[in-house]
Amino acid sequence: MKTIKDSVHDHIEVGGVARDLLDTPAVQRLRNVVQLGTASLVYPSANHTRFEHSLGVYHLACEALDHLGVQGQNAKRVKAAALLHDVGHGPFSHNLEALTHRRTGKYHDDVHELFERGEIGAVLRSHDLSPVAVADLVAGDGKYGQIVSGELDVDRMDYLVRDAHHTGVPYGTIDHGRLVRELTFDAGDDLVLDEGNVQTAESLLVARALMIPTIYDHHVTRISKVLLRRAGERLLESTTIDAQELRRMDDPAFLVSLRNEPATVEYARRFDERDLPKRALWAELEDTPEDLLSLDHADVRGFEMEIAERAGVDDRDVILDVPGEPSMTESSTRVLVNGEARRLHEQSPLVDALRAANRAQWRLGVYAPADQTEAVGTAAASVLGMDFDGALVSEVRTGLQETLRSFQGEGT
Amino acid sequence: MKTIKDSVHDHIEVGGVARDLLDTPAVQRLRNVVQLGTASLVYPSANHTRFEHSLGVYHLACEALDHLGVQGQNAKRVKAAALLHDVGHGPFSHNLEALTHRRTGKYHDDVHELFERGEIGAVLRSHDLSPVAVADLVAGDGKYGQIVSGELDVDRMDYLVRDAHHTGVPYGTIDHGRLVRELTFDAGDDLVLDEGNVQTAESLLVARALMIPTIYDHHVTRISKVLLRRAGERLLESTTIDAQELRRMDDPAFLVSLRNEPATVEYARRFDERDLPKRALWAELEDTPEDLLSLDHADVRGFEMEIAERAGVDDRDVILDVPGEPSMTESSTRVLVNGEARRLHEQSPLVDALRAANRAQWRLGVYAPADQTEAVGTAAASVLGMDFDGALVSEVRTGLQETLRSFQGEGT
Amino acid sequence: MKTIKDSVHDHIEVGGVARDLLDTPAVQRLRNVVQLGTASLVYPSANHTRFEHSLGVYHLACEALDHLGVQGQNAKRVKAAALLHDVGHGPFSHNLEALTHRRTGKYHDDVHELFERGEIGAVLRSHDLSPVAVADLVAGDGKYGQIVSGELDVDRMDYLVRDAHHTGVPYGTIDHGRLVRELTFDAGDDLVLDEGNVQTAESLLVARALMIPTIYDHHVTRISKVLLRRAGERLLESTTIDAQELRRMDDPAFLVSLRNEPATVEYARRFDERDLPKRALWAELEDTPEDLLSLDHADVRGFEMEIAERAGVDDRDVILDVPGEPSMTESSTRVLVNGEARRLHEQSPLVDALRAANRAQWRLGVYAPADQTEAVGTAAASVLGMDFDGALVSEVRTGLQETLRSFQGEGT
Amino acid sequence: MKTIKDSVHDHIEVGGVARDLLDTPAVQRLRNVVQLGTASLVYPSANHTRFEHSLGVYHLACEALDHLGVQGQNAKRVKAAALLHDVGHGPFSHNLEALTHRRTGKYHDDVHELFERGEIGAVLRSHDLSPVAVADLVAGDGKYGQIVSGELDVDRMDYLVRDAHHTGVPYGTIDHGRLVRELTFDAGDDLVLDEGNVQTAESLLVARALMIPTIYDHHVTRISKVLLRRAGERLLESTTIDAQELRRMDDPAFLVSLRNEPATVEYARRFDERDLPKRALWAELEDTPEDLLSLDHADVRGFEMEIAERAGVDDRDVILDVPGEPSMTESSTRVLVNGEARRLHEQSPLVDALRAANRAQWRLGVYAPADQTEAVGTAAASVLGMDFDGALVSEVRTGLQETLRSFQGEGT
Repeated sequence: MKTIKDSVHDHIEVGGVARDLLDTPAVQRLRNVVQLGTASLVYPSANHTRFEHSLGVYHLACEALDHLGVQGQNAKRVKAAALLHDVGHGPFSHNLEALTHRRTGKYHDDVHELFERGEIGAVLRSHDLSPVAVADLVAGDGKYGQIVSGELDVDRMDYLVRDAHHTGVPYGTIDHGRLVRELTFDAGDDLVLDEGNVQTAESLLVARALMIPTIYDHHVTRISKVLLRRAGERLLESTTIDAQELRRMDDPAFLVSLRNEPATVEYARRFDERDLPKRALWAELEDTPEDLLSLDHADVRGFEMEIAERAGVDDRDVILDVPGEPSMTESSTRVLVNGEARRLHEQSPLVDALRAANRAQWRLGVYAPADQTEAVGTAAASVLGMDFDGALVSEVRTGLQETLRSFQGEGT
Repeated sequence: MKTIKDSVHDHIEVGGVARDLLDTPAVQRLRNVVQLGTASLVYPSANHTRFEHSLGVYHLACEALDHLGVQGQNAKRVKAAALLHDVGHGPFSHNLEALTHRRTGKYHDDVHELFERGEIGAVLRSHDLSPVAVADLVAGDGKYGQIVSGELDVDRMDYLVRDAHHTGVPYGTIDHGRLVRELTFDAGDDLVLDEGNVQTAESLLVARALMIPTIYDHHVTRISKVLLRRAGERLLESTTIDAQELRRMDDPAFLVSLRNEPATVEYARRFDERDLPKRALWAELEDTPEDLLSLDHADVRGFEMEIAERAGVDDRDVILDVPGEPSMTESSTRVLVNGEARRLHEQSPLVDALRAANRAQWRLGVYAPADQTEAVGTAAASVLGMDFDGALVSEVRTGLQETLRSFQGEGT
Repeated sequence: MKTIKDSVHDHIEVGGVARDLLDTPAVQRLRNVVQLGTASLVYPSANHTRFEHSLGVYHLACEALDHLGVQGQNAKRVKAAALLHDVGHGPFSHNLEALTHRRTGKYHDDVHELFERGEIGAVLRSHDLSPVAVADLVAGDGKYGQIVSGELDVDRMDYLVRDAHHTGVPYGTIDHGRLVRELTFDAGDDLVLDEGNVQTAESLLVARALMIPTIYDHHVTRISKVLLRRAGERLLESTTIDAQELRRMDDPAFLVSLRNEPATVEYARRFDERDLPKRALWAELEDTPEDLLSLDHADVRGFEMEIAERAGVDDRDVILDVPGEPSMTESSTRVLVNGEARRLHEQSPLVDALRAANRAQWRLGVYAPADQTEAVGTAAASVLGMDFDGALVSEVRTGLQETLRSFQGEGT
Repeated sequence: MKTIKDSVHDHIEVGGVARDLLDTPAVQRLRNVVQLGTASLVYPSANHTRFEHSLGVYHLACEALDHLGVQGQNAKRVKAAALLHDVGHGPFSHNLEALTHRRTGKYHDDVHELFERGEIGAVLRSHDLSPVAVADLVAGDGKYGQIVSGELDVDRMDYLVRDAHHTGVPYGTIDHGRLVRELTFDAGDDLVLDEGNVQTAESLLVARALMIPTIYDHHVTRISKVLLRRAGERLLESTTIDAQELRRMDDPAFLVSLRNEPATVEYARRFDERDLPKRALWAELEDTPEDLLSLDHADVRGFEMEIAERAGVDDRDVILDVPGEPSMTESSTRVLVNGEARRLHEQSPLVDALRAANRAQWRLGVYAPADQTEAVGTAAASVLGMDFDGALVSEVRTGLQETLRSFQGEGT
């Protein structure tokens, strides 16, 4: 039994299969993958890694299993899955997911492959665990998969607390000790919170809802994330590196690749020196036509080129960023109320309100270098508006006049 | 300048009028008044006092004044008001307010009297401050009164953080550093949060909404509070102690008075030994007829006696507790949005949801000794239901059948 | 199993005998006994009680037993002892120990009596535990008594962390998680720290050494403690209250007794209003003759009267305070070094240094009202000096001239 | 004025010259230099960077200047120096210092060059600051240089607290708020702690003394540091990269260079996979002959080859690590005692004890792959012993027999 000191959970005891997995290259690689991608450009202390997070998830999984009374092979399998749940992540965590997982089918399959081959597979088998079964848990399958990946999983319990600790933002301090203690399986083998925990469930949702705009979707986090993604696209186009290879890189490898490749060196410089584009247009997305939200990569590039042309700037200096609608898995958390498992959104008026609050902060962004935001912003409003029957433009005209004025030319 | 170590704000520097006020008996008395009344019966670590809270409020007031650029007499007055804002509190803070402030008119007048007479008045005058003007600030009057008592006052910023710190409950950890920094006066001299702080305001509301049911209205906090209040009533009836005298007591004086007076000794024993009554009826209040909510003291006693009679128990063993509707002052917090001050409830969908969530947790309680909860619960449902045209009873029958079953005879 | 939220250890699970003991009046009484006596006059946040500390000690005992692999009756006995270890404390914890335990023999016997009679005895017996055996553990007897009371006991692990948390002083933050984990029994059944923990042991000693002068022996803590003790003496002399009765009081009962008794009302006022005497003489004690250190109560009174007479002040206004030499039990902590249990002071050069550092801060104090410190200080230096062949006086003259000058008339 | 959220100091306000400096590439580069080098291999949460530390040092400098009443150009200069004090660091902070600063003369000159050229120089000059004057402050020169680099500098106040926060080790929690407040200049313009702070000074020393063996000199930190240094040496030998260039790299650039160069790829793999050498010999250094301590690089290589030959292993698998004696600058901290500035080591018995304690933990290490530790350990004891007249060998034989036995073949 090895004891590891953690800044969030204090002492974490690692034994059995987890101890052996810890020494595999795939797990050690997570030391070089930051947890929050580019959020450290907003919160300089947020340099925590997927490695320490994985340890934390493993720790909470052990506590949850203990409280749930799960033992034997089932417990062993969950512990392995908890420690391994992030080994499939590419550099900068979710930031490059669109690239790393775009061309090779679903993430899921990739995890299966990772678990079956190489040292991870060997370690799992040496502990009488089936790699496929463990990978299934990571995907959230089955009764015990809910502990690792579901509305009430230990993954989100750890990251909300850890992200709060490292950013210094106080909103994520959920009561993970209580959450883990109140987990139980209902009659249908669904993982639920025990009686009297509607509010415990609400607090998880609230934490998430407050952290999304403050940290995860802060505009500087987003701008730098899109910049990195663009850099990644160029890298894939200009070199022999493919998505599979990109996905196996760690952060240093990716950064240095960008620095070394002429087509991406300018992106690398901007990122390294935090010389980021600024917001040229920043528009509410709530009532935006479906079409705009279902743009594929080629569409986005098309718009960027059109905007660039109209603004009279280099098209590499225009970035259109249309994020998906913010989702909150926690909404469907199940809680026992008078013996019956209810979904949180059926029970709590908070769910709809928090969803609405997050939708209200959902924004389309067009970014450009500081001295071009005015030209690009105007061009973008026009280009995007025309294509969508004026819907966005009219919205921009009425509700966002102020916003437009204040954000054109604004400093990051 | 005296530096005082605080467990929440680290070092607090106290100078000028505040330093002199600190040494007055009225301020020192707050060392013996707990901040959260009976909440320490639920959270054993919650023994913090109005004294340390007053220092905290003073500290945040200094920071707020600094950021707002308020200086001179105005600043001095606010600092004095911040330190003094709680000197009018009776024993166990708000728990006995109904008694201590019932017969003597509004709290406000009492504060004025406290400030004008005695050492406080002397200290204020020696620093060229008008006691009346300082008392007005405590009452929230005028432009600067908003800093001390209003939707965005430093009082709530301190207590949310301090209550969270001492209970160990993580929900109250608002970002007070940010709140204080973002305060500004709008054109109409209203205290508002600066642009870009809708979410900062929401987080204050959320913290409050999560703390209410978890701490402030936890059923054991409420039961013990009502027990203390009943004891206080008997004390006023059985002795020469009047409301004014009661209000000037500190916690030890009140407790020992209860122990020494035969009419209250049993209350004191129950409180001291945490031998508390249990819930006999615990009913949702949301749709309850107006009448039930406007009961006066005599009505409540009338119901208790009727319930006791029907249940065949001593009427001193039945306690009916009908709290007022939970309110959230924070809802009307003003935030600048595109240059215009908007009330939070106009801007944020969260406000209504949190209000609804708190209303949904609003409960009428009937309490009785553990071995009498079943009889008393049944009698209470019947008595209260009959008197109100069956409204409560039918509600009880439909929505609360489960609740009734589970809470009759339940352990605290 | 009941779960209690604690501000230091987060969630504490209380079950079995501990749960039943928790509800006894003797344990509930500890809610009204502050942990640090008068230290809250220096650190206003330090209002934590013996109750929450007892829960914390119980919690760490459970963890230690778990790591040591102790089960069954032995474990049950230790858990009971951990929760009960402080029930014998009088009001204001150690502050009045000299009075409460002076006339009735040793503390030990008192604990035995407390445990055998009343509800505690009943609960223990109902769980098949011998009250005598549990009381023996509280006294530190036997193999398992070391866990509750010894150099490495869980009592000090809890109080160092808890006192740091509540005062806000950072020095006591020992790594209790590690300490508990590294406990083991050596061949001779001595409780020791496992191999590789010389430094863990040192950190415990260091924490204690830094907390003593900062908190426990801060001069204001000491002055107010002596004031309370004097008040207690008068109370015993002037009323029918005896030491036994005094010992069973809680803090409110003691405070109110002082307020109600004419002979002590002025002490009560001073304490309540923090109108404390100041230092008139503050002299290093390191080389002081034996005689001065072995003064009994009558000797001290004799000196006080003599000093008062010479200074021309009321003898009730002079307080002579000669504390015992600071001791550090932690010095004899045993640690395994290459398989052999060594005492920390044999192994670590820090022990002697910390002892010397604490001795260097050891002081005799003479206290008087602010306007009399000069007269009393001079008189005291002369009186105490003459009686001891000039030793103290010469020391005062050479080393303490500066000190004397700066402290005569100084503000607390 | 820009406000940055920090996990240690909460909100840091950056304005004036500091704000402009923040955007320079040299300062942004520090985001990619970890604060503690390889310590994250022991403490997985310790991923904090020189960037956040630099912000923290700047913040404490502002507070110190405020308390000291320093304003105008002097203050501006100190603030710039505080933010810039680490820009000269190479990758992995101090870990590669022996290489990066070996051939180019002293660090000092390099800092001067960095400050005069490029954007830093431009920003400083645009704020009417002389780059030379700011660089002098970084070097600790002059009255105000003491704030940035000296026994009582804000650098160590920040790193002790920050390293504790991020490792989770509780020992470094000095009271930086108090330290900053108690700084003053004595008559001779020396930076000292004000009267009554002997203990404040001691706590700084104690924190450092406890952190050295726990974090900074933990054997895994050291082993991985030496591994990196060896890798760096090979890199300099095998490529065109020179010391100057190495020094300007950040961590990712260095890591990837190791991975790409055939001569160092195996080092990179070992580091990336945490496949570290183990201790083959671990010997106390206290009484070791001078000669051993003054070995140069060539001597060390000579020994390694000799040991390898005798053990029959590849010489690249033997690492001899002879660290310098642990030093504690804090020992000479000046504190006012009765108006006179005294060095802490003149005043406090703790200083010698802590020095002795640290010397007692000072170790020479010989490291080798896990399956060769026995052969290499024996060979090393023999080789090192012979060369130094048997001194080390005899010591090894007597005092370290146990150690040798236990560490030969031990797991890291």
